[in-house]
Amino acid sequence: MTSLVMLSGGLDSTVTSCIAKSRGAGQDLHAISFSYGQRHGERELEQAGIIGETLGVKSHQFVRIPFNENFFDGATSLVVGDKQEFNVPTPPKAGTEEGIPNTWVPQRNMLFLTYAFGYADTIKADYIYTGFNAVDYSGYPDCRPEFVLAATQALNLARKRFVEEGHTISIETPIIDKSKVEIIEWGILLDSPLNLTYSCYNGGQKACGECDSCQIRLSAFAQVGIADPTEYN
Amino acid sequence: MTSLVMLSGGLDSTVTSCIAKSRGAGQDLHAISFSYGQRHGERELEQAGIIGETLGVKSHQFVRIPFNENFFDGATSLVVGDKQEFNVPTPPKAGTEEGIPNTWVPQRNMLFLTYAFGYADTIKADYIYTGFNAVDYSGYPDCRPEFVLAATQALNLARKRFVEEGHTISIETPIIDKSKVEIIEWGILLDSPLNLTYSCYNGGQKACGECDSCQIRLSAFAQVGIADPTEYN
Repeated sequence: MTSLVMLSGGLDSTVTSCIAKSRGAGQDLHAISFSYGQRHGERELEQAGIIGETLGVKSHQFVRIPFNENFFDGATSLVVGDKQEFNVPTPPKAGTEEGIPNTWVPQRNMLFLTYAFGYADTIKADYIYTGFNAVDYSGYPDCRPEFVLAATQALNLARKRFVEEGHTISIETPIIDKSKVEIIEWGILLDSPLNLTYSCYNGGQKACGECDSCQIRLSAFAQVGIADPTEYN
Repeated sequence: MTSLVMLSGGLDSTVTSCIAKSRGAGQDLHAISFSYGQRHGERELEQAGIIGETLGVKSHQFVRIPFNENFFDGATSLVVGDKQEFNVPTPPKAGTEEGIPNTWVPQRNMLFLTYAFGYADTIKADYIYTGFNAVDYSGYPDCRPEFVLAATQALNLARKRFVEEGHTISIETPIIDKSKVEIIEWGILLDSPLNLTYSCYNGGQKACGECDSCQIRLSAFAQVGIADPTEYN
């Protein structure tokens, strides 16, 4: 059994990687990580590389995706793009927004999945694991189960092995309906390297502790009753 | 009504652009073109730019997509990638292959569509026109109507305007079931700039006249009974 995990370097995808390993993908776990001009890109990918090594992935593919303002109309705060001076909104602090957060990046998950499917066929993977989560970020349209189902169908229909052999690749989303507290608890159970994970939207060497992502994470660790092992400013 | 056409610089997408214009998209027709390390990339995109100007598109977005051998396992002859020395198979001459031709690029059309959907929301398009064709290249899994339907569903489910307003983007494939002869005849009827189109897989200044793509095209023009206005070696 061969699995490919989409590993961002954050908490969710790291726990998801450990879940994949616990399901028997240990010997054949590969990783793929994406750089898309995200605000916290280099810092996050650095951690993704370290986490991949720690988990002993068989290969780790890094993909630099061209994203620029033309694809977002200034609508996302998460992408700085090639032009570092591009005027993007600031990521929100927790609880200050209604609707879809401005950290959402249009079609990002479909791009990730499409590259993942391409690589999955190269390494002959049967499963793609993602840390998509529809609870804490319920406003992200492309983190919902109905999107994942539709994407699975479309991406398989485009595959040679599906057409010729009926082979399907399954998108596994083990934490899609889990709260951050449950994800951390699952991570601890599987001895995940939570100390290596980096979730901050701002991309400093240490996490800011103030952005939406840091706040959700800190609050969840507090609820679990242990200290967040990541370093904060 | 605003439409976005995926314009490669070839015959199919050029006629498709003219079909979009004939349907009333003339005032608000935008174009998007992709560079993905394709063998014939620069030459094709040069023509795409000229054709876009000739048709008076309102904007033309060029996207450089990172494709490399890791995504293809040497399986495609169409992509040379960043490493120009990468050892790829030679494109087949017409009629020498069975099954899916080695010119097929895994997940290419889903990548194109995903970028097109991202840009479509930036320019507030309602339609995306593509020259996908399931006749001459019936071996391409991602040129089939069932793929297009599934992709439409997945890509819309990922959109903010779909979630918030129920707005859908339709993928229009007016020539999907047309033969090359019918496409050329339709193109002539609409006064398409067929003389500007470039279809050769080999990417020389003039078309080679020998590859699969050139052969299909030359044969179709012969059947229509007019000379192919493109320059050949």
